[in-house]
Formats: sequence, C-alpha cells, structure tokens
Amino acid sequence: MEFSSKLLENVVYEIAQLPSIGKRTALRLALFILKQDALQTESLANALLKFRNEILFCEKCHNISDTPICDICKNPMRDNSVVCVVEDVRDVMAIESTGQYKGVYHILGGKISPIDGIGPNDLKITSLIEKAKSEHIKEIILALSNTMEGDTTNFYIFRQLEDLDVKVTAIARGISVGHELEYTDEVTLARSIQNRRDFNVSM
Amino acid sequence: MEFSSKLLENVVYEIAQLPSIGKRTALRLALFILKQDALQTESLANALLKFRNEILFCEKCHNISDTPICDICKNPMRDNSVVCVVEDVRDVMAIESTGQYKGVYHILGGKISPIDGIGPNDLKITSLIEKAKSEHIKEIILALSNTMEGDTTNFYIFRQLEDLDVKVTAIARGISVGHELEYTDEVTLARSIQNRRDFNVSM
Repeated sequence: MEFSSKLLENVVYEIAQLPSIGKRTALRLALFILKQDALQTESLANALLKFRNEILFCEKCHNISDTPICDICKNPMRDNSVVCVVEDVRDVMAIESTGQYKGVYHILGGKISPIDGIGPNDLKITSLIEKAKSEHIKEIILALSNTMEGDTTNFYIFRQLEDLDVKVTAIARGISVGHELEYTDEVTLARSIQNRRDFNVSM
Repeated sequence: MEFSSKLLENVVYEIAQLPSIGKRTALRLALFILKQDALQTESLANALLKFRNEILFCEKCHNISDTPICDICKNPMRDNSVVCVVEDVRDVMAIESTGQYKGVYHILGGKISPIDGIGPNDLKITSLIEKAKSEHIKEIILALSNTMEGDTTNFYIFRQLEDLDVKVTAIARGISVGHELEYTDEVTLARSIQNRRDFNVSM
C-alpha cells in the first residue's frame, strides 16, 4: 500500500496493530474517522487512554474493575462461598446475563495452552488455591471452554483442590437448548448420553 | 451486555461507533488493548488525534495530504493535462499501485446517491468543471465504480463537460484478468461483447 500522507500511513499502521484488523480495514476506519466530527475522535482517543491507564483488576477475583474490589465481590447479596472459575471478563458477562448465578467469580486470565506458551504460572491459579485454603469456600465451579485447553486447565485445578475440603463441580455439557439431535457432533452426543440425568420437568 | 466497569463500558461504546465493529468485537479489542503495553495504546490514541486534527485536503485535487498541495499534484513529472476522476483516496492508492498512470487526480469524495442523500452539490464536481474550464486540460478520465451510483455520477459529470473542449473517457470495463468466462455475470459479459476491440497482442 502506497500512502499519499504520512499521517494517514501512521494511523493505518496503528489501527492495524489491533487483532483481526488488516490494513484495508484500518484504512476504511481512518477514512470514516475523517468524516466524523473531531470531537468524536477525541472522545474515542480519551476513552482508550483512560481505560488503559485507569482500569484496575479486582484484588479478590481478578476481574477488571474501576475500584480495587469489584462490584460483584463487594455485593453483600452474593454468596462468597461459591466461586465460579472462568477464563476472562467476557465469561463473567455471559454468566451474569443469565441472571441465574448468585455466587462470586475467579478470573484465571486464560487457559493452560503449551502451544501458546501459557503454563499454570501465567494464570491466576495459585491465588485460587490460596482462596480455597484460607477462606470458607464450599464449592468451586469450573466454567472453562469445552476445548482441550479448557479440559487441561480444569484437570490441573482439580488436582490442586483434590485434598481440600471443597466441592469441585463443572458446568454441564451436552446438547444446546433448541439444537437438533441429528446435527450434533458425535463427541458431544456421546458425552451427553454418558452424562444422562434422571428426567426432571425443569431440565 | 452488562459491564462490571464504567471505563470498559465507555471504551466499548466508543470503539463500537466505528463502522462494521459491533459491541462484541469492541469488547475483544478493548481486552486486547489491556494486554498490550500502555505505550502502544498511547501511540494509537495519538495517531488518531494527530490524523484527525492535522490532515489536510489538497487544494488542487482534494486528496488527503499532509501539505496544502499533495505530493502527486506537486510532482513535476506528472502530466497535469490528464485528470483521473475517482471517488476517494483508496481509488488513488489502487491506481497508483499499478504504476501505469502518470496524470493527476480529482477526488470527488463520493458518488451521487439519492438514497443516501448525496447529491451533486455534496461532491467536488463544481471544482472539477472549473478546472476543466480554466486550466489547460486535455483529457478527463472517469474512473468511478461500476455501479448504478457510479454510472449516474459519470453521466452527470459528462453532461457538464460536454460543451467544453475536453476529451472525456472512462476506464475500460469487461472481464477481469484471470477470470473464467463461464463464471462472469451476464451483464458484464454482454457489455464486454458490445465493447469489443480490435485484437492487439498487449490486450
């Protein structure tokens, strides 16, 4: 790509550093910004800087937060003895949007993935084990993705918690609600047969 | 989407104002920014502000430029008597990358599109006609997209230039190089038969 302007070249280069945004998309975004009001660009730039420089991680659950302790951990209505272990903030948002969970969270910050060079020490696993040892925790719910990395991480955490007096559970896996049986992949189908439950009207 | 942080909510809102970026993508980008070095975010924010506030439009061709007259218009090696009319800077970049064109450009800033509320007065058409009247211009090449809006704009400009002593041409349209005949749509194929040329080895 040949640019007629250094300013344009620079902004395209910077935008294209973001994941899944190539140079063409970056150019389209830059040209869009040019048509916008300058105040709009200013508020985007300020939001980026403010977010990057002022965001905190909750000291209890490692969720991103505006305060040292996040709103969920601060909430006296939440059950502190049930901890749901998730990968990142998006999972917290997904679970919160169901309105069904009243416990607290523990954000690992990723999954064990040797291929990406992510080992147990790169994740917030130690603080989870410490929490399970020192605080009064009844149940730890493992809610990681249903992938090889998720399973590995689940297993690693389970082994660390095995000897403690904490119930370790994992979220149910099976056929999605509204999903046709015939289009379900074999592995999911096989597991959902293995993990069958007594029939219950609210299932 | 329920956010645990106002800073996150704000940055996601701002990023999602960009075209073709939804809230989910915006959230993914925000979380990526958080993993990056803070200096990286600063250079992105600065590039955005600098670009928006300091970019100029070339006084001659309306191309975006760092200087009042752009590098192409300034270049004494370019033929000022041949003007290629394009929609925006991306078209200039595409034509420049061929290395085949030695004339100058005129950037309209869009196409006539009544459905989007864009009329001739929203585009840089008047200055093109002025240029054709006052400067020594031999040829105006219409190089707009091969769409209804492009055709409308071409026709509008052509009517304005008709009585002047300027040759008006349009870029060739037909089957793309390397394209199989059987997969070409009927309209393109029909037009490429109508517009057939004497055979020439360099075609």
